Amino acid sequence: MNPIKIILIGSGNLATQLGTSLHSSGYFISQVYSPQLKNATLLAKKVKAEAINNLKDIDTTATIYIIAVKDDAIATVAKQLKLNDKMVVHTSGSVSMDVLKNISKNIGVFYPLQTFSKTKKANFKTIPICIEANNKSTLENLTFFAKSISTKVENINSAQRQQLHVAAVFACNFSNHMYTLADNYLKANKLSLDLLKPLIAETADKIKTGKPADMQTGPAVRGDKKTMDAHLKLLSGNKNAKTIYSLLSNSIIETSKKNK
Amino acid sequence: MNPIKIILIGSGNLATQLGTSLHSSGYFISQVYSPQLKNATLLAKKVKAEAINNLKDIDTTATIYIIAVKDDAIATVAKQLKLNDKMVVHTSGSVSMDVLKNISKNIGVFYPLQTFSKTKKANFKTIPICIEANNKSTLENLTFFAKSISTKVENINSAQRQQLHVAAVFACNFSNHMYTLADNYLKANKLSLDLLKPLIAETADKIKTGKPADMQTGPAVRGDKKTMDAHLKLLSGNKNAKTIYSLLSNSIIETSKKNK
Repeated sequence: MNPIKIILIGSGNLATQLGTSLHSSGYFISQVYSPQLKNATLLAKKVKAEAINNLKDIDTTATIYIIAVKDDAIATVAKQLKLNDKMVVHTSGSVSMDVLKNISKNIGVFYPLQTFSKTKKANFKTIPICIEANNKSTLENLTFFAKSISTKVENINSAQRQQLHVAAVFACNFSNHMYTLADNYLKANKLSLDLLKPLIAETADKIKTGKPADMQTGPAVRGDKKTMDAHLKLLSGNKNAKTIYSLLSNSIIETSKKNK
Repeated sequence: MNPIKIILIGSGNLATQLGTSLHSSGYFISQVYSPQLKNATLLAKKVKAEAINNLKDIDTTATIYIIAVKDDAIATVAKQLKLNDKMVVHTSGSVSMDVLKNISKNIGVFYPLQTFSKTKKANFKTIPICIEANNKSTLENLTFFAKSISTKVENINSAQRQQLHVAAVFACNFSNHMYTLADNYLKANKLSLDLLKPLIAETADKIKTGKPADMQTGPAVRGDKKTMDAHLKLLSGNKNAKTIYSLLSNSIIETSKKNK
């Protein structure tokens, strides 16, 4: 058993994946907190921890406190904690480290750059962990901890983390929305997204080996106005998809001009 | 050696991948045509075929003629061919089958729904092939041929193929552009896209097991206005990225309302 004792605040997708991964790596998770005792219990059982739904019951003798709750709940949780010099980190891409400053002298951020679901097991070894701390010794301890579960640990300050988060919205949230728009359009035409799945997988796979701008295909980058006009005509019943098609095609054209 | 004799018209990414795949499956490729003899020769050598750069030299005794040239070159090639009752197909997602009608009595479309590069080997077994033909016997022959190289063969008419192509622009061309916008933004801030690659891979992987609308994450679908405003502020120096961020965030919000 690893002598490091961890308190997990939160029971959502990230807390669940991180908690089970830490537990199976031999870390001792002492408590899992959720305002809903049912949710705390569900995760606590998996990681052999105590479930609590009141922050007043928190074990103040742990080594690391990981706040893995929704972005807008971090400040609320932070207000209820007082942990002197314990290491306290949150896991958010968009919230500043400073939100933790009244809890402890040793604070930081432990931001795993991945999208998590409750059921699909995450492999932390290959997930980039962006860390930040408010002093050198906390950074050293946090680095040591992060490196014990991932091979990709990066020092990223709050400003850079925000920038990474903006980029992640484009690369992930918006690309997923592109899949949704394709799915909805196909469904309206009684076709299945299954036909596009190998193409989607290959598109994402291609950028492992080259710059995405160099991998761009399709009518816009070819300057194939005839095909674009035909597509816009097909989309005439769907104002939203049509507006997006025009804007993104123009953006592809402008971006490829700049790259030349 | 398979007794079916194939003529390959084109020497681009798709022609190269399809040609080498057919050749290694035992098909006899008789000729490879390209207006540039150098390009025809490059592929012809790989598939042990004759290279030609004049359509007047075409072998008129083959079984299947595959026109795998750029969309806007298909009509030009078609005008120069006269092949009576030979099976002639093109490989385009957006061009109607009718463009081939003056070449032969037996025409069709053989559209592999994948993005191809010249160097990365494509595995046709898992690539959906959308086929169409102008009569029953040609459809039967084309189905037999397509099934000999892929396990996913679908009858798709010209109208449906156009719709699939529109959807592919969203799911693939536009999602790749999202990667490009992320890459450019990170580069401007001295950060690397490498940090986002596991997230991009997971985002594409997730839709194998569920509807993309159900997989949507990020500030827009959470209705997290504070984070969206902070992101727009960070993008204030980049009008194009900012406009796209606003439009797509609104589209995610509207789409998730409809799904509820």
